[in-house]
Amino acid sequence: MHALWVWAHPHAASLNGRLREVGISALDATGWSVDEIDLYREGFNPLLVERGEADVRHHQDRLSRADLLVVQFPLWWYSVPAVLKGWIDRVFESGFAFDVPDPETGKPLKYGKGGLAGKRALTVVTAGDRAATLGPRGISGDIEDVLWPLLHGTFWYTGMDPLRPHLITTADEVDASTMAQIEADLRVRLEGVMTERQIDYRPMTEEHYDHTIRLHDSVAPGDEALSAHRQSGSETPG
Amino acid sequence: MHALWVWAHPHAASLNGRLREVGISALDATGWSVDEIDLYREGFNPLLVERGEADVRHHQDRLSRADLLVVQFPLWWYSVPAVLKGWIDRVFESGFAFDVPDPETGKPLKYGKGGLAGKRALTVVTAGDRAATLGPRGISGDIEDVLWPLLHGTFWYTGMDPLRPHLITTADEVDASTMAQIEADLRVRLEGVMTERQIDYRPMTEEHYDHTIRLHDSVAPGDEALSAHRQSGSETPG
Repeated sequence: MHALWVWAHPHAASLNGRLREVGISALDATGWSVDEIDLYREGFNPLLVERGEADVRHHQDRLSRADLLVVQFPLWWYSVPAVLKGWIDRVFESGFAFDVPDPETGKPLKYGKGGLAGKRALTVVTAGDRAATLGPRGISGDIEDVLWPLLHGTFWYTGMDPLRPHLITTADEVDASTMAQIEADLRVRLEGVMTERQIDYRPMTEEHYDHTIRLHDSVAPGDEALSAHRQSGSETPG
Repeated sequence: MHALWVWAHPHAASLNGRLREVGISALDATGWSVDEIDLYREGFNPLLVERGEADVRHHQDRLSRADLLVVQFPLWWYSVPAVLKGWIDRVFESGFAFDVPDPETGKPLKYGKGGLAGKRALTVVTAGDRAATLGPRGISGDIEDVLWPLLHGTFWYTGMDPLRPHLITTADEVDASTMAQIEADLRVRLEGVMTERQIDYRPMTEEHYDHTIRLHDSVAPGDEALSAHRQSGSETPG
C-alpha cells in the first residue's frame, strides 16, 4: 500500500515534526511505501491564481498514487494553517478531484463519489485546547464538527473515506511520558488505518437527500446538527 | 464610524470585485470612513513563520482602529481562501487578539472577551452552491455551522460580535437582474450593520460552561449541535 503524508508546521523541531517522524516510520515498518510533502520546507505556494500550474500537476500525480492520504497539522483558529489550505485550494482542482463526470450518466460526481474515490483520509491534529473543549458540548465544538469543511466538504466531497481525526490535545504541555504515550497511540492508530470504520457520512443519493439536496424530512427527523449527515446519526462510529 | 474591509479574490474583475466596490461605496455614502485590505493585489504573505513582523504590526494597527471588520471571500472548500486564512494566522497574534490578560484577574480573556472586543464582524461570502444546500439540513451544512471556525473560533474567541454571514449563493450563475438584487441586498445589509442582532453565542462564564468548559448539563440539555452554544439555541437570531 502507498501513503501520501502531507504536513504543515513552520518548525521541523516541534511536536509536529516528531509526530511526522514517528508516523512515517510506523507506516514504513509495516510495509507501506510513503511519499511526503513537507509544505513549509518545500516552500509550497498557497496562492490560487490560475489553474493547472506545473507544481500542482506534480502534486496531483502524487495524490493519485496514494491509497491513504494523511494530513497533519496544528489546529490554528480551529482550521488548517494557510499553507495547507492553499495546498487544497490549488491541488484539488475541478476535473481532478471533483466535477469528474459519471461514466454512465455524465453527471458530475460528488459527496461519496468523485476523483479521489477509493482513498482513505486521516487527519493528525495537534491542539493547545484541553480535550473536553473539543468534544461533545465543549466550548470550541466537537472536533468532527470543527473540521466539517475538511472531513465532509473536502474529503467526502471528492469521494475519499474520511476517518475520525487523530487529535492530540494540550499539545503545548507535553512531557516525556505523555510523549511516549502519544507516539504509541499514533503507531496503533496507523496499524489499523485501513480496517477501521470510516465516518459514515450519507452519500448524495435519493435515499437520503431530496431534489434541493436537503435531508428528506423522514431522515433523522427534525435534527439540524451536522451529525444528521452521518448514517449513524450522532453516535460516534467505530 | 470606521470600517476595515478585507477581501480575498484572485481577480478584481469578478463578482467579488464588484461586491467590494458596492459595499465600500455604500459604507462611504452613509458616512463611514473605510480602510481596505485587498489581500491578492497587496501580495500579502500568508505564511506564519515568526511573530511580530513589520507588515503584521501594520495590519494590527489598522484592525485596532475599526469599529466594523468586513471579511469578504469566495467559499473555497467550505472555508476561506488560503491568503485570508494566512491573514488571520499572522495578524490575530496572542497578546493582541487573544491571551490578553483581564485587567482585574490577570486571566487571559476569550470567547466574548479579548483583544478585539467592541468590534462587529461581518462576513460577505459567495458560493457556487444552491441556497438550500447551505441551509438547515442541506448537504453542505448550514452556513453558520460551516463557518463555525471563523464566526465562533475566531471572531467570538477574540471578543468580536459576529453577525450572520451575508451569503450569496449560485454565484456562478448571476445575470444582470440578479446582480441588481444582490447589490441592493448588500446595501440594505450594510445600512443596518451596527444595529442588527449579533449571533448570540454564549460567553465563557460559569452560567453556561462547567470547569472543563463544556456546557452545563442543564444548559440546552442533551443538545450536541453547534447551535447549543447560541443563547437562543437553534432559533435563527434577528
